[in-house]
Amino acid sequence: MSNKRVAVVGASGYAGEELVRLLLAHPNVDLVAVTSRQFSGKGLADVFPRFSHLEKAQALKFSDGDPKQLARDAEIVFLALPHGLAAEFAKPLLHTGARVVDLSADFRVHDANIYREFYGHKHPAPDLLGQSVYGLPEIYRDEIRDAKFVACPGCFPTSILIPLRPLIRRKAIDRRRILVASLSGVTGAGRKIEADYLFAECNESVRPYGVPKHRHLSEIEQELSKLAGEKIVIQFTPHLVPINRGIVTTIYADVGDDVVNLDLKVLFEGAYEREPFVRLLGEQSLPDTKNVVGTNFIDISWKLDPRTKRVVIMSAIDNMMKGASGQAVQCLNLMCGFPETAGLI
Amino acid sequence: MSNKRVAVVGASGYAGEELVRLLLAHPNVDLVAVTSRQFSGKGLADVFPRFSHLEKAQALKFSDGDPKQLARDAEIVFLALPHGLAAEFAKPLLHTGARVVDLSADFRVHDANIYREFYGHKHPAPDLLGQSVYGLPEIYRDEIRDAKFVACPGCFPTSILIPLRPLIRRKAIDRRRILVASLSGVTGAGRKIEADYLFAECNESVRPYGVPKHRHLSEIEQELSKLAGEKIVIQFTPHLVPINRGIVTTIYADVGDDVVNLDLKVLFEGAYEREPFVRLLGEQSLPDTKNVVGTNFIDISWKLDPRTKRVVIMSAIDNMMKGASGQAVQCLNLMCGFPETAGLI
Amino acid sequence: MSNKRVAVVGASGYAGEELVRLLLAHPNVDLVAVTSRQFSGKGLADVFPRFSHLEKAQALKFSDGDPKQLARDAEIVFLALPHGLAAEFAKPLLHTGARVVDLSADFRVHDANIYREFYGHKHPAPDLLGQSVYGLPEIYRDEIRDAKFVACPGCFPTSILIPLRPLIRRKAIDRRRILVASLSGVTGAGRKIEADYLFAECNESVRPYGVPKHRHLSEIEQELSKLAGEKIVIQFTPHLVPINRGIVTTIYADVGDDVVNLDLKVLFEGAYEREPFVRLLGEQSLPDTKNVVGTNFIDISWKLDPRTKRVVIMSAIDNMMKGASGQAVQCLNLMCGFPETAGLI
Amino acid sequence: MSNKRVAVVGASGYAGEELVRLLLAHPNVDLVAVTSRQFSGKGLADVFPRFSHLEKAQALKFSDGDPKQLARDAEIVFLALPHGLAAEFAKPLLHTGARVVDLSADFRVHDANIYREFYGHKHPAPDLLGQSVYGLPEIYRDEIRDAKFVACPGCFPTSILIPLRPLIRRKAIDRRRILVASLSGVTGAGRKIEADYLFAECNESVRPYGVPKHRHLSEIEQELSKLAGEKIVIQFTPHLVPINRGIVTTIYADVGDDVVNLDLKVLFEGAYEREPFVRLLGEQSLPDTKNVVGTNFIDISWKLDPRTKRVVIMSAIDNMMKGASGQAVQCLNLMCGFPETAGLI
Repeated sequence: MSNKRVAVVGASGYAGEELVRLLLAHPNVDLVAVTSRQFSGKGLADVFPRFSHLEKAQALKFSDGDPKQLARDAEIVFLALPHGLAAEFAKPLLHTGARVVDLSADFRVHDANIYREFYGHKHPAPDLLGQSVYGLPEIYRDEIRDAKFVACPGCFPTSILIPLRPLIRRKAIDRRRILVASLSGVTGAGRKIEADYLFAECNESVRPYGVPKHRHLSEIEQELSKLAGEKIVIQFTPHLVPINRGIVTTIYADVGDDVVNLDLKVLFEGAYEREPFVRLLGEQSLPDTKNVVGTNFIDISWKLDPRTKRVVIMSAIDNMMKGASGQAVQCLNLMCGFPETAGLI
Repeated sequence: MSNKRVAVVGASGYAGEELVRLLLAHPNVDLVAVTSRQFSGKGLADVFPRFSHLEKAQALKFSDGDPKQLARDAEIVFLALPHGLAAEFAKPLLHTGARVVDLSADFRVHDANIYREFYGHKHPAPDLLGQSVYGLPEIYRDEIRDAKFVACPGCFPTSILIPLRPLIRRKAIDRRRILVASLSGVTGAGRKIEADYLFAECNESVRPYGVPKHRHLSEIEQELSKLAGEKIVIQFTPHLVPINRGIVTTIYADVGDDVVNLDLKVLFEGAYEREPFVRLLGEQSLPDTKNVVGTNFIDISWKLDPRTKRVVIMSAIDNMMKGASGQAVQCLNLMCGFPETAGLI
Repeated sequence: MSNKRVAVVGASGYAGEELVRLLLAHPNVDLVAVTSRQFSGKGLADVFPRFSHLEKAQALKFSDGDPKQLARDAEIVFLALPHGLAAEFAKPLLHTGARVVDLSADFRVHDANIYREFYGHKHPAPDLLGQSVYGLPEIYRDEIRDAKFVACPGCFPTSILIPLRPLIRRKAIDRRRILVASLSGVTGAGRKIEADYLFAECNESVRPYGVPKHRHLSEIEQELSKLAGEKIVIQFTPHLVPINRGIVTTIYADVGDDVVNLDLKVLFEGAYEREPFVRLLGEQSLPDTKNVVGTNFIDISWKLDPRTKRVVIMSAIDNMMKGASGQAVQCLNLMCGFPETAGLI
Repeated sequence: MSNKRVAVVGASGYAGEELVRLLLAHPNVDLVAVTSRQFSGKGLADVFPRFSHLEKAQALKFSDGDPKQLARDAEIVFLALPHGLAAEFAKPLLHTGARVVDLSADFRVHDANIYREFYGHKHPAPDLLGQSVYGLPEIYRDEIRDAKFVACPGCFPTSILIPLRPLIRRKAIDRRRILVASLSGVTGAGRKIEADYLFAECNESVRPYGVPKHRHLSEIEQELSKLAGEKIVIQFTPHLVPINRGIVTTIYADVGDDVVNLDLKVLFEGAYEREPFVRLLGEQSLPDTKNVVGTNFIDISWKLDPRTKRVVIMSAIDNMMKGASGQAVQCLNLMCGFPETAGLI
């Protein structure tokens, strides 16, 4: 089987750079194009010295990103652009038959009204909204295999949906009272050149943000509602913490008097025993971002609290890997029939 | 008014060192003794070079800490020992008439059974349990003034009780469904020489711990129950984050349909407008540890969430100041009739 | 004595903010104006919530900074602007009789040609070059007292000149072979909103920069040459390290066969025993930024190396305090006849 | 070719853990044993949850480390023990015919007197001193291929010797005046449970240490002297900086009036163009630990300084990879005839 030709649009952001790293090392793909308006014309290895030993990287130059050219050169195009810009590329690319994996938030939500409510502006391409598959393999593996257009989940949603899915489906928890607190490293904000993300503003600082209605709620609630078969509204608070990468999420849900009988080990193992990127820590140890950083794993552990009749589920991911670029490569592997772990372990 | 003579027992831990810093600079006290078994015989300024320019520090040597000698030398003795050791000093000191401010957890809980449940061993001096005043000036200012024996609150409880007090007293929230997530810097663990607190284990790491029954729940629930006049059980999860100092706490409580009418600004200003160390940020800005580190302030902000009918209250403190040594000095000021902010602003 | 009226131009950068913090707490001054083009019209306490409890801060609004108005309102004006902009304010202010303390690099070097060589453009006000006093109290205490116009030293120069001065003056070292390596926290770059200073670019990163001809060499060599009475050229390499504040400097100089006789303790104590902000650690302990951060001290220690016949001198300062705003306040104290440590200890 | 059977003694330290990570992923080896006195009897995956998804890791338990058993099970044994303990294993292992790769400092220096001078105690096995090959492939590639016993270089020496080798051999610099300053991340100290390495002692702290006679000088000077054919003594100062991994080294050497003619590009490319793990950045960009962390590369750049007639050479490595475990695997690859980059890129 000859290698797939792939391209990365927006390759100079954090997610784009990580995607480039993964694709350069992937045994089944050839990275044929990288784009960046800021660095157009410059060599990939000059902009990112960490790739300078790779012949493939030495041969690549950033281009402006002409969709037609990209469609000719690549079979699969990754979009790693800031929110709001994906449609401009997705439309012509899909039209010419390229498959598209979008890492932005633009096509995760299927309802243009909800998009508007959470993102504050009209959706730029509502006609495309129904065409994307939500790129979370643990839920949509089969749909992703055949998808022309994949919208990769946000980092927070990934850390929340995977742990909650078995509980929702088994109706083990009170769906109306789910509460989630997440802690995220600073790359989660992207390579945004704003005062808020300067070293001296983030270092020795911890702060909540996006309270009470962070944008990711739109996709989290959409997916939870689908799983539940009814509308679900949750509480969600992200906090910014001074690490480069990593998310820890703590989820609380009421289990009522079932707290004494609920066998979470059986529940989680039944759901995820064979998933290549889900590691169940059980009740023995709690997740720590340092165990997942640089990997595509999600670590999950849980505790029942008989005092409050709640379950506390905790997860950890690398926001750049399972939370963004690693997951995009996992989707690629499914789309192309590669081993699901190719280039990721 | 001549200066009060004070001593610090356990002056080589993080809280003890911070207390020494504050007391050396306090205009109304003379620090007459510091103790540390580890450093007994060494000069204070030799162990802590940051104090080396202070004549007072140059004159002080660590002693072993003989309670009788301490009682002779000092009018007020601070205990900054690891948990479980305070009784050994508190007993003889109180007996000889010294006033004692204890920063450990040993005398915060008034019920020996609850102490045993949460700390895993019998209380070492149950007869003293009823004699201490819980050293949170925002609740017990008058009692602290006259107290012989003050048990300073834990860092997490401080960050939780001050924001919740007005809501509990005004019955604005559902007392059965309070949920708290806290993020703490590493000094919160004390100067413990354990692998878990090594730099390379904490840096680039974020992790929950003490799930689901952290020891501080014992005093948090005791104090909330007193405020409510009924037994309160809450959910509480601390997380360790890679900063030296600082706690951010996010509190969730159900307000039901009152969510449309609740005027939290009025409520909080009514409660705290005149408190010297409470800063109300309102809904405009969210707390950030970097705004409180090095100060004795607690910053509080809030948001009503009409989607979930909850209130989200957020606070930030310096765990070494308002969460420990600063608060101890605030208590000292009350006990001695000094201005409450003396040595703290 | 009534309080001096002072103003800070460029009060929203890191040095400006730190200066505001010091001046708000200073017992002998009234801060009457703060300027910032970016925040003009906004309240000081709104922009910097850490000052929000201070009545003085609540009363101050950022203005655009009209030099005439400033000259009417303030007796002493601090300039904390990015390099190249000080002349625009210094000229009219000095003309109207205000005294000026400039924290930028613009008036530290007295030779317009050297300025041009190191800063890459013509000096904007060469006629003012001869009028400023180099604001390093350990060398120019008397001149600063009477100065109309003080140019505060750079952070690196401060950490280098104070340790080298006694050695140069006593001719204890080979002046042609001095070599300096410095490590600086990220605030040293100012509040520059550039990709290089984003959290994820600086965290877990250590890098040299400004090799081999950093701009600060111009003032370091000017001052060393003055001390020596002959032209001195040195080697200097700064490195950026992931801390908010602090500089550690290591200085190497050849002492030849005198290595066996040189009594550095006598030399340093003779020079600095009575300096209020110089702490001599001697050979016993090495400097650590954490002992000086938040203070105006410079910690100095030294080692003779008989193997290489060199002396190794190490210093630590807080780049925001002794390296910038603290030193500016120390100059203010001298200029106004206040105790030299007023507002600084 | 069947896989080589390898074992790691001391697998619970930082270097040991990293070695285990590399060996578990290496295509040509089977990790058959891991030892740790502290964790004897525990599962590898239980102690290090980051390996928990690997079947190989699940099958491995820590043992006490019986040399005879190790010699039976493994063809090559890595020793990743604290200094002073390697002889105890190396002797019996070598005796029974196993090949040994030692990561400690015990067998790097070939002169027992120099070992005693720098390490402060008698060498535990002076008879073995002559048998080891210094495991720096860039100098001793051929010797390593045939070696029974490899002593891997220290992290600082690696970052110093590779950049200096071409300059020494070409006699381009004054060998008597070499000066080196290094900055190291905290894992460089190993997983030592001491107060100095606690998070709150290292975070927001930068400090020199080991001044003026760090232990690594012994092997640095031994190897430089060999390269030069005459005794070389250098100046070397390490500094501890708050990053997990990474070393930046800055080297200064006098080039005299040759400064105008010296073509360092030609010199370095001549020496290293074909080295798989040396990346020459040239004069264009300076090294940054973040570009090498997680890799086995050493990045090198250089500047000539006509003002001081010196060359400034800068290098960056990951102290855990090229500075320890990565280099040990590179040696393994040479010893076994594997591609030199196997398991490392």
